[in-house]
Amino acid sequence: MGERIDVDVAIVGAGLAGLTVAAELADAGRAVLVLEARDRVGGRTLNQDIGDGAVVEMGGQWIGPTQDRIASVARRLGIDTFPTWVEGDELAYFGRRRHRYSGEMPRLNPLVLADLAQATTRLDRLARRVPLQRPWDAGRAGEWDGMTFATWLRRAVKTARAREILDLYLATILATETSNFSLLHALFYVHAGSGFQILSTLEGGAQQDRLVGGSQVVALRLAEQLGDAVRLQAPVRRVRHDGSTVRLEGDGVRVTARRAVIAIPPTLAARIDYDPQLPAARDQLTQRLPQGTVIKVNAVYDEPFWRADGLNGFAWGPGQPVRFALDNSPPDARAGVLVGFITGEAARRLGRVDARARRQAVLDSLRFYHGERAGRPQAYHEVDWSAEPWTRGCFGAHFPPGVWTQYGPALREPIGRLHWAGTETSPVWNGYMDGAVRSGERAAAEVLAALDETAETAERSPAVALPKAS
Amino acid sequence: MGERIDVDVAIVGAGLAGLTVAAELADAGRAVLVLEARDRVGGRTLNQDIGDGAVVEMGGQWIGPTQDRIASVARRLGIDTFPTWVEGDELAYFGRRRHRYSGEMPRLNPLVLADLAQATTRLDRLARRVPLQRPWDAGRAGEWDGMTFATWLRRAVKTARAREILDLYLATILATETSNFSLLHALFYVHAGSGFQILSTLEGGAQQDRLVGGSQVVALRLAEQLGDAVRLQAPVRRVRHDGSTVRLEGDGVRVTARRAVIAIPPTLAARIDYDPQLPAARDQLTQRLPQGTVIKVNAVYDEPFWRADGLNGFAWGPGQPVRFALDNSPPDARAGVLVGFITGEAARRLGRVDARARRQAVLDSLRFYHGERAGRPQAYHEVDWSAEPWTRGCFGAHFPPGVWTQYGPALREPIGRLHWAGTETSPVWNGYMDGAVRSGERAAAEVLAALDETAETAERSPAVALPKAS
Repeated sequence: MGERIDVDVAIVGAGLAGLTVAAELADAGRAVLVLEARDRVGGRTLNQDIGDGAVVEMGGQWIGPTQDRIASVARRLGIDTFPTWVEGDELAYFGRRRHRYSGEMPRLNPLVLADLAQATTRLDRLARRVPLQRPWDAGRAGEWDGMTFATWLRRAVKTARAREILDLYLATILATETSNFSLLHALFYVHAGSGFQILSTLEGGAQQDRLVGGSQVVALRLAEQLGDAVRLQAPVRRVRHDGSTVRLEGDGVRVTARRAVIAIPPTLAARIDYDPQLPAARDQLTQRLPQGTVIKVNAVYDEPFWRADGLNGFAWGPGQPVRFALDNSPPDARAGVLVGFITGEAARRLGRVDARARRQAVLDSLRFYHGERAGRPQAYHEVDWSAEPWTRGCFGAHFPPGVWTQYGPALREPIGRLHWAGTETSPVWNGYMDGAVRSGERAAAEVLAALDETAETAERSPAVALPKAS
Repeated sequence: MGERIDVDVAIVGAGLAGLTVAAELADAGRAVLVLEARDRVGGRTLNQDIGDGAVVEMGGQWIGPTQDRIASVARRLGIDTFPTWVEGDELAYFGRRRHRYSGEMPRLNPLVLADLAQATTRLDRLARRVPLQRPWDAGRAGEWDGMTFATWLRRAVKTARAREILDLYLATILATETSNFSLLHALFYVHAGSGFQILSTLEGGAQQDRLVGGSQVVALRLAEQLGDAVRLQAPVRRVRHDGSTVRLEGDGVRVTARRAVIAIPPTLAARIDYDPQLPAARDQLTQRLPQGTVIKVNAVYDEPFWRADGLNGFAWGPGQPVRFALDNSPPDARAGVLVGFITGEAARRLGRVDARARRQAVLDSLRFYHGERAGRPQAYHEVDWSAEPWTRGCFGAHFPPGVWTQYGPALREPIGRLHWAGTETSPVWNGYMDGAVRSGERAAAEVLAALDETAETAERSPAVALPKAS
């Protein structure tokens, strides 16, 4: 039945959230153990070696303004950042029509641009009315949660082109179609990400900077510091919990702890066998929080050839399998890399064909954006995150209509000795690396407070329980 | 690691779907084994003894016109039906205002009645345009799947009262708020259930008849005939499958089979550990199909006292925790029984309070409908289906916006040697006992065809593979 280990706190999942919890608790002098299903740490961050000591990121990768917690952790670990490459023009395609532009948007019909500006302003204004800790308390929460974001787009955006662009942006940011989440969730997400402008832009926005050594290095360093306290290839199958302890049964290991933090996506947390079972509200919440759908690719070339044409590599098109492509070259440009995001319908379609056909479709799309050379990379790397057994979809979970208002309070609420972390539980930068770190810090604080309280009770109890001399 | 058993076909789940599969295959001479997690068969059908040899149904209970398959199975098993009690007037409450009426609807404002009639006619007309086998092929599938049913109600129904009534009816029929499912799903469900009129009515509709001995008796008889081929308390944790066999690991038992049928709700099917893992489309589908939310109660009295007042027991009110109450007395009325449905918000709220407070709230609601006597039952029985570990919500799963069009094809498609059953997979009477039986018959036919094909191949193979004399 495997090794038996006793710790203060057991943590399920060695992604950024779980490792943050572990690091915080270890710093506070608590004995911790992180159980990770995979043979690696990092969860939804993953480096890919592209030779010559360079790496590209196959998972979460960018950080930007207001993402203070991931920035702080990186700084503490001595990990530098470097700016995403932005010098040059950008490309947008509508059908086969190419728009080369600089600044925020292509020079579209002024009516479309005005419509876009008005819609994003309105989105931001409504978003600010959603309380991040309690989205279900928004004044119009019922109405906003009762409709899909797609419905709102049809109502609020007048021109078809502006609708198409906003649809593409939101669908890509959430890695799922705009019919899948409610207006309330879109507003929450936009608010959690400091507004549409910051969410959607490179320089000055959420895609501004990258981490030297690749984003997974944060998890790798945290794990290195934790040493033996991280156990790989130990998926947790069962969690037994009662008034005094939590016992976790993982492949090859059994852990007894005073508290546990489950730091994996909600839909995967649902697959653990809890004894006693979790309350209906929690279980039904996790039935309702699906992961998004994205295949991320990196195509490696001998140089970032688009730069010579005065392009910065950023290209997008509503009809393209690669919804967005960006320059993802190493900081010294010793190679050229284009990163591409295939989301929603395209990800499902290409997820079903064989690897060769998928690669071909992706490279066709990159060639469509950046010409012949883009179709002939030296190397091609892809991760279909929906097919990853220990993630089952990226970037994160989304809230379908009705779910925030009906089940929101069950998202973070501890159940006995079980606490919840993961970027999905974060009210700030939900779905991002920064949200993962924040969730880990919050869960660690929760656990420390609970342990302190329990310790006091335990110290007091014997005195109370002592039989009186008689 | 428990007993080892070899069969032709292993079935997960001894609800109506799984038992139907087993019965059909056993009839065809195949060796089967049904693995059931609970200590009983019947899944979402469950009898409750109320003394004197009488029972009431705590789960699925009614059958009606066009539900031919459950009717046929019952007939074959020698189970008779009896009509739901309908003689007398019905009650509807809007706020504290009581409407006593006979026929379909209370005498509301003629504008409201006209609005209701128009809306239900339109609902039926649109519903007929949804192909039951392939809802995603409906001409306007994208539009219909892109909005919540709540959004459609706001658009298509002019008067607030008619909206409120239709909202209550659909939310109760699906046991979840109308914001949770798409218009396309509502249309599919209505079409699958032979139209709004049949779905929503007692006499002449889906609530027309009951089964003598209680609905669970169907499963009990099927299980009796299957004998040792049904194994209780054997939740299946892991399914290993390859080109030649399926191996199921249940608590205390390991089964090797040529094919397996998973006949449990999609959200529970997702919690089994499959090796190799299931394709992304299937896994993401099951992340997106939550179970509804309902507490079902039966209050038992010495007699059906409402009948003496000329009432048939049917009462409903949008603001009441018990959305709908009906006469659920035994056929000979040796006791009086009121059955009540607490769904959606009320089920979540009352699911969280202690049993005593819940009972009180439910009885207050029954008293509100049927007077003082209704508040003082001899016995009170309830099942919160969301809290049942091996169901986790009733009546069935619903499709949130976008899910039919994005993931529909993954609902029934076999994966290698794994087949799918359960009422959620049925194109006809989806969510009902009849749908469960139909899904079982379809899965059994699928498996038989596959076994025959494999057998032929196996017979042929040796001839082909024999080395030539040389």
